[in-house]
Amino acid sequence: MDELKKSDLDEKTIAMSKGLIADAVQKAGSGHPGSAISMTPIVYALYRYVLRHDPLDPKWEGRDRFILSSGHASLAQYVQLFLAGYLTLDDIKGYRTMYSKTPGHPEYGLTEGVEMTTGPLGQGISTAVGFAFASRFESALLESGLFSHEVWTLCGEGDIEEGVSSEASSLAGTQKLGNLFVVFDSNRIQIEGDASITLTEDVLERYKSYGWYTDRVSFNAPSGYKEDVQAFLSAVEKARGVKDRPHFIQVDTVIAWPTPGKMGSEKSHGAPLGEEAVRGLKEELGLDKDKKFQVDPDLLAHARESIKRGEEARKKWEKEFEAWEEENPDKARLHKRMKERLLPEGFDKAIDELEATLSSDPLPTRVSSGKAINAIAGAMPEFWGGSADLAGSNNTLIEGAASFGPKGSGTKQWGECAPGGRIIHFGVREFAMGAITNGILLGSSTRCFGATFLQFVDYERAAVRLSALMDIPNIFILTHDSVALGEDGPTHQPVEHLSSLRAMPNLDVVRPCDAFETCEAWRQIFKKKEASPSALILTRQKVPSLLLSRQKAREGLPKGAYVLKGGEEDEVILMASGSEVSLILDAGTELEKMGIRARVVSVPCMEWFDRQPLSYREKVLPKAIRARVAVEAASPMSWYKYVGLSGNTVCIDRFGLQGSGSENMKALGMTVENVVEKALESLKEE
Amino acid sequence: MDELKKSDLDEKTIAMSKGLIADAVQKAGSGHPGSAISMTPIVYALYRYVLRHDPLDPKWEGRDRFILSSGHASLAQYVQLFLAGYLTLDDIKGYRTMYSKTPGHPEYGLTEGVEMTTGPLGQGISTAVGFAFASRFESALLESGLFSHEVWTLCGEGDIEEGVSSEASSLAGTQKLGNLFVVFDSNRIQIEGDASITLTEDVLERYKSYGWYTDRVSFNAPSGYKEDVQAFLSAVEKARGVKDRPHFIQVDTVIAWPTPGKMGSEKSHGAPLGEEAVRGLKEELGLDKDKKFQVDPDLLAHARESIKRGEEARKKWEKEFEAWEEENPDKARLHKRMKERLLPEGFDKAIDELEATLSSDPLPTRVSSGKAINAIAGAMPEFWGGSADLAGSNNTLIEGAASFGPKGSGTKQWGECAPGGRIIHFGVREFAMGAITNGILLGSSTRCFGATFLQFVDYERAAVRLSALMDIPNIFILTHDSVALGEDGPTHQPVEHLSSLRAMPNLDVVRPCDAFETCEAWRQIFKKKEASPSALILTRQKVPSLLLSRQKAREGLPKGAYVLKGGEEDEVILMASGSEVSLILDAGTELEKMGIRARVVSVPCMEWFDRQPLSYREKVLPKAIRARVAVEAASPMSWYKYVGLSGNTVCIDRFGLQGSGSENMKALGMTVENVVEKALESLKEE
Repeated sequence: MDELKKSDLDEKTIAMSKGLIADAVQKAGSGHPGSAISMTPIVYALYRYVLRHDPLDPKWEGRDRFILSSGHASLAQYVQLFLAGYLTLDDIKGYRTMYSKTPGHPEYGLTEGVEMTTGPLGQGISTAVGFAFASRFESALLESGLFSHEVWTLCGEGDIEEGVSSEASSLAGTQKLGNLFVVFDSNRIQIEGDASITLTEDVLERYKSYGWYTDRVSFNAPSGYKEDVQAFLSAVEKARGVKDRPHFIQVDTVIAWPTPGKMGSEKSHGAPLGEEAVRGLKEELGLDKDKKFQVDPDLLAHARESIKRGEEARKKWEKEFEAWEEENPDKARLHKRMKERLLPEGFDKAIDELEATLSSDPLPTRVSSGKAINAIAGAMPEFWGGSADLAGSNNTLIEGAASFGPKGSGTKQWGECAPGGRIIHFGVREFAMGAITNGILLGSSTRCFGATFLQFVDYERAAVRLSALMDIPNIFILTHDSVALGEDGPTHQPVEHLSSLRAMPNLDVVRPCDAFETCEAWRQIFKKKEASPSALILTRQKVPSLLLSRQKAREGLPKGAYVLKGGEEDEVILMASGSEVSLILDAGTELEKMGIRARVVSVPCMEWFDRQPLSYREKVLPKAIRARVAVEAASPMSWYKYVGLSGNTVCIDRFGLQGSGSENMKALGMTVENVVEKALESLKEE
Repeated sequence: MDELKKSDLDEKTIAMSKGLIADAVQKAGSGHPGSAISMTPIVYALYRYVLRHDPLDPKWEGRDRFILSSGHASLAQYVQLFLAGYLTLDDIKGYRTMYSKTPGHPEYGLTEGVEMTTGPLGQGISTAVGFAFASRFESALLESGLFSHEVWTLCGEGDIEEGVSSEASSLAGTQKLGNLFVVFDSNRIQIEGDASITLTEDVLERYKSYGWYTDRVSFNAPSGYKEDVQAFLSAVEKARGVKDRPHFIQVDTVIAWPTPGKMGSEKSHGAPLGEEAVRGLKEELGLDKDKKFQVDPDLLAHARESIKRGEEARKKWEKEFEAWEEENPDKARLHKRMKERLLPEGFDKAIDELEATLSSDPLPTRVSSGKAINAIAGAMPEFWGGSADLAGSNNTLIEGAASFGPKGSGTKQWGECAPGGRIIHFGVREFAMGAITNGILLGSSTRCFGATFLQFVDYERAAVRLSALMDIPNIFILTHDSVALGEDGPTHQPVEHLSSLRAMPNLDVVRPCDAFETCEAWRQIFKKKEASPSALILTRQKVPSLLLSRQKAREGLPKGAYVLKGGEEDEVILMASGSEVSLILDAGTELEKMGIRARVVSVPCMEWFDRQPLSYREKVLPKAIRARVAVEAASPMSWYKYVGLSGNTVCIDRFGLQGSGSENMKALGMTVENVVEKALESLKEE
């Protein structure tokens, strides 16, 4: 096919795509047509000519990844997924209806070809950085370019404004991610109208300052607006020539072009164009203005040539892959195990051996966790991660590992960075850390974690939610978990964070009470059958290592709550998590002295407990015992479901204090005396 | 005093300050000496020569504001506050001890001279943008330059890395905030060591791309490290000459300079330097190495000359202020009322009149809220605010008002912006919006709000927390409050957000059930005696306006919960908030048909209810009635404290769905039938 004919076909296919978008929004009665329409030439060009992908095998490991950061423009992607052969026309007609494959925003796991859930702005582009991390790391780990691919993302002004994209883009610059390509659809229209009311920065200069390659393609040609796919493809080729930094290509577009009365206006952003405008649009595009969901078989065939292209690429890759497998049996075994998300043989042994070294000496659970991380890392080469500039405090350093980074980078302290380095330095960028670790998990078969203080999980909360929504096994390590952290004061002392994390669906919040529970928590985070993310909540301060938990944690911890101490005739239940478990043990002893039989229950993970059969839950918290006290140096909210109206809480429902950890705990009522008093009250109340 | 002598005194005062910092950290046994020491020449220069401030009247309205964004370096500020006369030497000695004025991180309301609480990185610099907004708006509102002042903030690499500073700085560029000055202490050291492991961007170029004035002062002179205060002051003067944009001055420093063995190293960041290094530091500084907390009276006198300077400036300002008051009696009355945070006379009337216009027609509560905003705005010229690019959807536009912005800016849609414009366009920058509105409240006597979808409060959560911690009356308007928002799907549907907000101390979460409660919610947000922030949670969808709430909301809403329907002999309590109140009314009617007396309780604000005397709480939720059902299209967590172990919840503990609002509600069990069933179950259980 000669170039002229091809570009003619391209133009017509783009026009047809726009018609489908307008019809789908019209049919749904709501949605976002404007930017989906103006982005269409770019998304079409990517799927048709740029991305290595195979609609016949959407999960092909060697594929390039495409992420629509502007999730509201989902139809731009859905329609190209239809044209490429991933979706059917009926799927397009099902846009924004219950149980369809084409919901309002792209959802991971629901639609083939959708690499992540987007919609919350800024996170697509930031998670794409994680995909690029993943590609580099996995290639280094498996020592093969087969696992290297390009990561493409398309974003709009909203993504550019969100701070998380700044964090991730700055780090991408430092990391010199040569396989990352961001296309910025600059249509200058946002919900509140012309973007210049709030965004006057020079975006390209900003990306240059991060160390990115930048380029600009304007569809606003002097001779009039022209969606110049060839110019875009030339820019892509030029960008691909630059291998040592991430790429940012701005494309100046007109939203909803060429919809009469709506193009270039925010009116096209978040509502159907209206029947009249859709007819006008179709006329402008050379389509039949009276026909809905028009698909020209020739154009569809032209679009679906990407299938052939993709299949060829995949088959070539598969041949190379087979050869690689044969030549590298060890790496091939590792690769296979990773793909199946299986644990290495030595996994349990590594934790068992660590536990055998632990004494009953008091240790901060963050320190125990650091030991567990290293035990696991020893057995599991695909395990990596880092901290938002708190590695030492979070105890997350993998000993002997290099820092993750491009060859030739590094510092005196960390030595030379390596593409397979297992320590990630995120800088003080919690949100980007959350998004990037999500991207690592989506973009590879490795396992990773990101760490910060529990307080600062607020900064990355929207990424934690997205991991829970996508059901991916991210691990959020959150240390310095209460007012007991001491003198850094209320800005650093979590209070409401435990409840607010526990309120989130599909997130397992694990707060171990000592060294043994911490080891078992790590074991269970890897062993649980759900893919859901976990938040591991750890103390800054030393806590006693309990002989009781040493005996019982292995069996009890995976069940989320278990009886540490108690019998058939207990009168009152004391329950706690983390550093407060030793407090209720002491309170139990005091009550015993008073002749009261107190049951002591350790509750490391409410989510795991709530998933147990009723019989087990009843065994741990028998309904008949209504005298109950829950103890946690945090907001009481998440405990009420266990204590009921006759129960009591010894918790903290105010902000922290500036004293030492023990001063704060005492001043805020976290004492044995107080627990005993509340237990007596609850016994009376019952 | 000639320049030479002065700079000699400056140098010695800076040396003395560093000694005090080292001693204070040593005494406390923990803290952050490194950057406090390297920032000292800058903070000293600002308090001594740059800032208009009066230690004799720390709250003087005409003062410049200084915000230490790097809150961990609090001693840099505390020591200068001591030298300037705000604090005593004993205060310095009390660093990081319980109940002292010098906690680990600066705390608003505790220490004179501290304009905001800092510590959570990125928020100081971002809130400073709000202070600059406040200065411009208040000057325009009161039509006088008397209320205009400079805003200075000092930040470090951590602040630069946090995305919120990017959001706020970009917006500051658009707003051309000529009174904003950011000093970037670039010591290139973070907790994980040399910053270049994670931060290689060209920070000055980045700020240039935002439209800022930039300059750079290096203390790393070719002849060796020199803390050149004069060079810094020259840069300040040069920057002050540029009036039409914000200013960014990078100062290259060496952390902990000149501490032997510790300077230039992360070892000086977060722990005491150690006795030996402190002695070495003192020797290097020409201090007595054996003496602790050395204060030379001459140097103290030199430093405290800022008192005279400040007093003169204040007295001059006060004279001008008195003249202004006399010439502008109306504005002066407004100013006085604002300062006292009193409501205008017409406040109640405005809301009463609005309520009189409301019918029982169904309305989304966001629409009712929009009406209330406009009623209040009509009575209250100091009331302003905006949205993170969702103004139309959040219904937050103040009709007839201009957009906030510098003269000469604007767009076709919004017309010319005005410095007194009451509509703020934040762009898609929720976190900056939270920080900036905090700054507006801290930096002026105006009242403001910021709006987004409830889902995206996650992005600004850390700023919400800071408003609650600082006890300032911010108003967070959060619409589209449940799965009933429909087809935008799970990425946009809040589930856990209500519980997670209610878990936060000192934040009032108000979710009105209809138009009447919405009006009363707005009234109470302004009338409540606490200064605490409020989150107003509103529906996207229409809800019936209830005749019952029209009668009862005015009295009941301020109490947080009240009996909408019920009597002495109720058998079961149904409780709900927001859009689910009409659901429990219907369920109550169904139960009645079955011969069961159901009490219907509207719970618009749990925090207000929990503050009521026990007698009122008992009247609404009598302990004797243990059959209870709480209904909310959200996580059940926050309701368990009211329902107990015999109660039930009809809530949503999973992520949302992609269908229409009513389809989602039904599929997730938010139905009359389900409420009735749970009520019957609870009656059995009791």
